[in-house]
Amino acid sequence: MRELKERILKEGQNLGEGILKVDGFVNHQVDPNLMDACGKEFSRRFAHLGATKVLTAEISGIAPALTTALHLGIPVVYARKTKPITMPDQVYLTLAPSHTKGRMVELIISPEFLAHGEKVLIIDDFLASGATILGLVRLAEAAGSQVVGIGALIEKSFEGGRKVLEPLGVPVESLACIVSMEGSRILFSD
Amino acid sequence: MRELKERILKEGQNLGEGILKVDGFVNHQVDPNLMDACGKEFSRRFAHLGATKVLTAEISGIAPALTTALHLGIPVVYARKTKPITMPDQVYLTLAPSHTKGRMVELIISPEFLAHGEKVLIIDDFLASGATILGLVRLAEAAGSQVVGIGALIEKSFEGGRKVLEPLGVPVESLACIVSMEGSRILFSD
Repeated sequence: MRELKERILKEGQNLGEGILKVDGFVNHQVDPNLMDACGKEFSRRFAHLGATKVLTAEISGIAPALTTALHLGIPVVYARKTKPITMPDQVYLTLAPSHTKGRMVELIISPEFLAHGEKVLIIDDFLASGATILGLVRLAEAAGSQVVGIGALIEKSFEGGRKVLEPLGVPVESLACIVSMEGSRILFSD
Repeated sequence: MRELKERILKEGQNLGEGILKVDGFVNHQVDPNLMDACGKEFSRRFAHLGATKVLTAEISGIAPALTTALHLGIPVVYARKTKPITMPDQVYLTLAPSHTKGRMVELIISPEFLAHGEKVLIIDDFLASGATILGLVRLAEAAGSQVVGIGALIEKSFEGGRKVLEPLGVPVESLACIVSMEGSRILFSD
């Protein structure tokens, strides 16, 4: 998506070791108009799948997942990383490595909000190694839901996440696909 | 706001000790249409203040803050509770008690995204004791910003947060004000 790529080139910071800082418009500070445009684009690409729920992981996934859900007219569920006291004792829980925290984090969903037979569209901010998204896939499967599509704002194709997700046999879409971050340059796939 | 109150009466669960569970439409699972309507209503109530930025705290504040920012056409910043590696070493940090976690949490903002002279509108999901919102006020003041208004989806007036915020002399708006949660009933102020 042109707007997102232009913003990454203008404001994204390559911190080295594959870390792209987009704190000015995706994480920490969010540009709501850009996020709405991204949600609209995801909605356009995934509308034909008949998803009944958008699934994401707190924290940075919430903004793009919410705007996508808004355009699709379906609810969004965000997996929690800490179990709040309002959640029942019996939950779906899996572990996934956090790229920016440098440790494993829990991903937790209440069975109340992911039912057997639901069609789940997973939306997240980044597709890097695919580990977080695979964690969400495991949660959806544990609930008896079917993952029908996966979308990420920014894909870092050199980290191999798409290969990891391919066996699922569902469409995987990213709005900005970075193929290289060598040196200070950021190169997109097209 | 009628839609929000009706939803609280229909789906909110009074878990006792002042805990209102709204995990089906505000926390964990989010109804994007309701959240958009709430953002539109906040925008209507606060438009005259000339806010330049919406400020909230991760995690549950993100959805209503994002839709408010979308309707106001200004960026939203969410205070982080864990410092990500993309954040600079020098930050604004304060402590606030977490109602649902039962401990103190850090609220952290990067100086990159809250500047001297900004007009800040604080939006959060709950106004209870006011402690989290006061934490956000301290961060805004540390940055040399001016808090111009405070909005919460749900106010629990019996926890006294409004009294705590009154000395700030800015408008405080809630879309559903609960005056009592005695027994299993939820009573609104009007």
